[in-house]
Amino acid sequence: MSSKSTLLTKNIFDNIPEKFTEEIIENIFIKQNLVIERIISNGHSTLANHWYDQLGDEWIILLKGEATILLEANNQLINLKAGDYLMIPAHTRHRVEWTLPNFDTIWLAIHMK
Amino acid sequence: MSSKSTLLTKNIFDNIPEKFTEEIIENIFIKQNLVIERIISNGHSTLANHWYDQLGDEWIILLKGEATILLEANNQLINLKAGDYLMIPAHTRHRVEWTLPNFDTIWLAIHMK
Repeated sequence: MSSKSTLLTKNIFDNIPEKFTEEIIENIFIKQNLVIERIISNGHSTLANHWYDQLGDEWIILLKGEATILLEANNQLINLKAGDYLMIPAHTRHRVEWTLPNFDTIWLAIHMK
Repeated sequence: MSSKSTLLTKNIFDNIPEKFTEEIIENIFIKQNLVIERIISNGHSTLANHWYDQLGDEWIILLKGEATILLEANNQLINLKAGDYLMIPAHTRHRVEWTLPNFDTIWLAIHMK
């Protein structure tokens, strides 16, 4: 009956700043070799000539908005809309090529180490 | 340039049967001590007098619909709507008390072992 056992919920669509210049990346859960991130993009894309090259696998789902990812190896363009998910294996060099302008695109990213 | 490096996307809201009697639980990603499940409820609740008592932590987010979870320890009722997420620590006895009738409530559950 201790209040310690009360569990708290949060909403993934809440607490988004009215205006922000940089993409927002927040850790919403961390446990050992697992990190769950909320990412908010608003017309953002990865810096020119920059590729993400991650040590671990990453599973992502787009919850709101639209985005396009580019894979370096085969020039694959991956268009994402709400509900789309994919696994990006470790060391798959990729970048966010485009996100919907003037709209908060919300991603959930699960990083495994 | 090998086609092996092509990544596939799926959509969490796709491929839902028109009708189903039992709650649908699908593993959509498995890696070592991590399982990501898609759960589809349509008015379902946990069997009477049954409590989930899980070995590992579980992080869940409701993506569509509505649900209520009950915790045994403090009788806490947790109402969930789209976007709500919470972490249920290992061995927190809980049950799904209610889900929206005549509607596909879609959950993403991340089980950690």
